[in-house]
Amino acid sequence: MKRVGVIGGGQLARMMIAPAVELGLPIGVLAEAEGAPAALATTLVGDYRDLETVRAFAATVDVVTFDHEHVPQAVLRALVADGVVVRPGPDALQYAQDKLLMRERLGELGLPVPAWGRVASPEELAAFISRHGPRVVVKTPRGGYDGKGVRVIEHAAEADDWFASLAEDGNGGSLLVEEFVEFSRELAQLVARRPGGEIALWPVVETVQKDGVCAEVVAPAPASDGPVSETAAAIAVAVAEGLDVTGVLAVELFETVDGRVLVNELAMRPHNSGHWSQDGAVTGQFEQHLRAVVDLPLGDPSPLAPAAVMINVLGGPEGQSMPDRYDRAAALNPSAKLHSYDKLSRPGRKVGHVTLIGDDAERVLADARAVAAVFAD
Amino acid sequence: MKRVGVIGGGQLARMMIAPAVELGLPIGVLAEAEGAPAALATTLVGDYRDLETVRAFAATVDVVTFDHEHVPQAVLRALVADGVVVRPGPDALQYAQDKLLMRERLGELGLPVPAWGRVASPEELAAFISRHGPRVVVKTPRGGYDGKGVRVIEHAAEADDWFASLAEDGNGGSLLVEEFVEFSRELAQLVARRPGGEIALWPVVETVQKDGVCAEVVAPAPASDGPVSETAAAIAVAVAEGLDVTGVLAVELFETVDGRVLVNELAMRPHNSGHWSQDGAVTGQFEQHLRAVVDLPLGDPSPLAPAAVMINVLGGPEGQSMPDRYDRAAALNPSAKLHSYDKLSRPGRKVGHVTLIGDDAERVLADARAVAAVFAD
Repeated sequence: MKRVGVIGGGQLARMMIAPAVELGLPIGVLAEAEGAPAALATTLVGDYRDLETVRAFAATVDVVTFDHEHVPQAVLRALVADGVVVRPGPDALQYAQDKLLMRERLGELGLPVPAWGRVASPEELAAFISRHGPRVVVKTPRGGYDGKGVRVIEHAAEADDWFASLAEDGNGGSLLVEEFVEFSRELAQLVARRPGGEIALWPVVETVQKDGVCAEVVAPAPASDGPVSETAAAIAVAVAEGLDVTGVLAVELFETVDGRVLVNELAMRPHNSGHWSQDGAVTGQFEQHLRAVVDLPLGDPSPLAPAAVMINVLGGPEGQSMPDRYDRAAALNPSAKLHSYDKLSRPGRKVGHVTLIGDDAERVLADARAVAAVFAD
Repeated sequence: MKRVGVIGGGQLARMMIAPAVELGLPIGVLAEAEGAPAALATTLVGDYRDLETVRAFAATVDVVTFDHEHVPQAVLRALVADGVVVRPGPDALQYAQDKLLMRERLGELGLPVPAWGRVASPEELAAFISRHGPRVVVKTPRGGYDGKGVRVIEHAAEADDWFASLAEDGNGGSLLVEEFVEFSRELAQLVARRPGGEIALWPVVETVQKDGVCAEVVAPAPASDGPVSETAAAIAVAVAEGLDVTGVLAVELFETVDGRVLVNELAMRPHNSGHWSQDGAVTGQFEQHLRAVVDLPLGDPSPLAPAAVMINVLGGPEGQSMPDRYDRAAALNPSAKLHSYDKLSRPGRKVGHVTLIGDDAERVLADARAVAAVFAD
C-alpha cells in the first residue's frame, strides 16, 4: 500500500493520522519543528522550502501531499521532475498559492467571482476604488491565511505599506483588489477528487468568521436546498476539474444579498470548514483526502445526521491546553466530540474544535457553543 | 492531561491511537516487539511479564491500561504497591485472567451462569459429565483466547493431555468444566465504567463465532427489545460493579433456547464485539475506554443508525495485507469503513475488520459481508 507523506506538521496533518491508522495506510510527516501537532507521525523535521530536505522526505514515501500550501513552486516542480507523485500537483497548487493567478484562472473558467483587479501602484488602486468603492478589499497575493494579508480599505493610502514591501521584495509584484461584497452569509463547498477524475461532494456548509478566522460551521448550510446547493456544487466541481485538483478542495463562497454565489477563496487540502465531517459524515475529509491522494475509490460523504456543527476553540487560558478542561466539557455534553491539536492556548490561537450532530441545526449550534465556551476562559 | 500507557501492542492498543490523537490525550504503548500493530505509539519494547520492564514503562505514564489480560498478578500488584494507577486494577483483572475465579465470583453475585465445576482429575470430570453430559465444555482456566483452551468433549479421556500438562506445571491446578449450553444465539453486552462508578452501556449485540473466533457482530442484536436487552444490561452492570471494573468490560452471553441469558466469558478491555462502535456509535469503545481510564466523564454510547454490522477479516491471501485490496473493497461499497491492523495475512489470522451502518440490519449485514469477502482470498 502506498505510503503517504505530508509536508507540514500542523493540525491538518495531525488529523490525517487517525484515519491513516484506522485504514492501515502508512503515513509520514515532514514537520517544521519537534513537538508539532503531527509529532506522532513525524518522520523528519526540516525546512519545507529547502529542496534537499523535501527530497530526502519524499524518498521515504510514495505520494506527497500537504498540510499547507506554502511549499515553493520551484521545490514542487523539482520533485515532479524527480518522478515524485505530488498530489495536488504544482500546476493546481499555484492557484491556491497566488490569489492573482486564481482570480485570472477562475475568470477564464467563467466562474462567478467578485469584481477584481491587479494593481501595481497606489494610483491603480485608487482607480479601482473609484469604480468599485467606497470600500474595497485589498489582498497580498501570497502567504495570507486566517485573515492575514487581507484588508478592507476606502483609501489607496491604506495599502502604502504593502506596496512598499512589494517593492522591497524586488519581485515587481502586484496586489489583488476586489469589490467589497455585500454578502448575506459565507458558504463553503468541499469536494474531493481522485487523479482519474472521480469526485465526491459533501453538502454545502455555512461558515461564520470572526476576525478573519473560521469560528463556526453548520452543515448543511441552513436553507440551502435547491439552487444554492446546486450552484455551490457546480462551482466546486468546475474548480476541481478546471484546476485539475487532486485531494480535498475547499471553495469558500459568498452568498450575496441579491442572491448570487461568488467564489471567495480556495484551499487545496482539508480545510477548517470541513472539520464537521470527521464526526458528522460517513467519510470525513481527512480520510477522503488520504483516499484521493493514494488514488483509492472515494468514500461516501453523506452526513450522519440532519445537522452537524463545528465550533473552533480560539484562545483559552494562556498556557493551558484543551484537555485541561475536558472534565467540565465532557460532563456538560456527553455527545460532543472534542478535538485538541496539542497546542498551548494563547489569545486567538486555534487550539482545537468541538463537533456535534443532531436533528435540529439551531439546537445543535446552541449546544455546541455551550461546550466550546467551556474552553474559552 | 493524564498520559495513558497501554501494555500490549496489538490491534486493541492500535485502535486506541485514533481517539487518543483526536482527543489530544498522550498515549504510549509497551509492545512485545518492534513492528507490532500499535507501533506508531510504541514507546518501549519489552516483556510485559518482567516487572522491571513494566515498571520502567509505567514511570513514563500517568495511568496504565491494557491491550490484553496476560500481565501477571504479581507484576500488577507490584505496580499498585509502587503507587501506579492501574485500570482496571488487579483485583478486577484476576477474574478475567482465571475462569475458575470468574465462575466462583459470578456465582457469589448471583448472576446466571451455566452449570460448572472445578475438576482436578479425570474422575471428577467423568462425574460432571455423568450429571450434565453427554456433552460438556472443558476449559483451561488461564491463557485461553479465540477458542484456544476450550474443548467440547463427551468423555473425560479427551482432556487427559490437559490434566497431564497441569500436573507438569506443578501448580496443582484444576480445569473448569461447564454444561454444554444449547444456545439459540450468542450476545455481548459492552459497558464502560469510570473509577467513581459512572457507567455507560452500548446496546446489546449479537455475535457469531466461527471456529471459536468472533466473525460477525450485529448491533443492536435483532429482536432484543425488552427483556433480553434489559437482562443483558442488568448482568453487565452487576458484573462491572461487583468486580469493580474500570474501563470497557465485555460480557459475552448465551441466549438459550429456553429463553435464559447466561454469562459465558468476560473481557476487561475493548473487545471484538464492540468494534462496530468505532463507526456506529457517537462514542466508540476505544474512545470510551480512554475516557474511563483517565477518569473523564463518559461519552454518549448511542448508535448513529438503526443498524450497525462488523465483519472480521480472517486470513486472506498469505503475505498480503488488507490495503492491497482496498481498490476493490472501496469501489464495491463507498460507505463501508475499512480497518486494517497492519498485519500480514495467514490462514485464520484476524487482520482487520469492516463496519457498515444503515437502516436495515439484514441488508447491512449482506452488504458488509460482500465487502469483507473481497479480502477473503
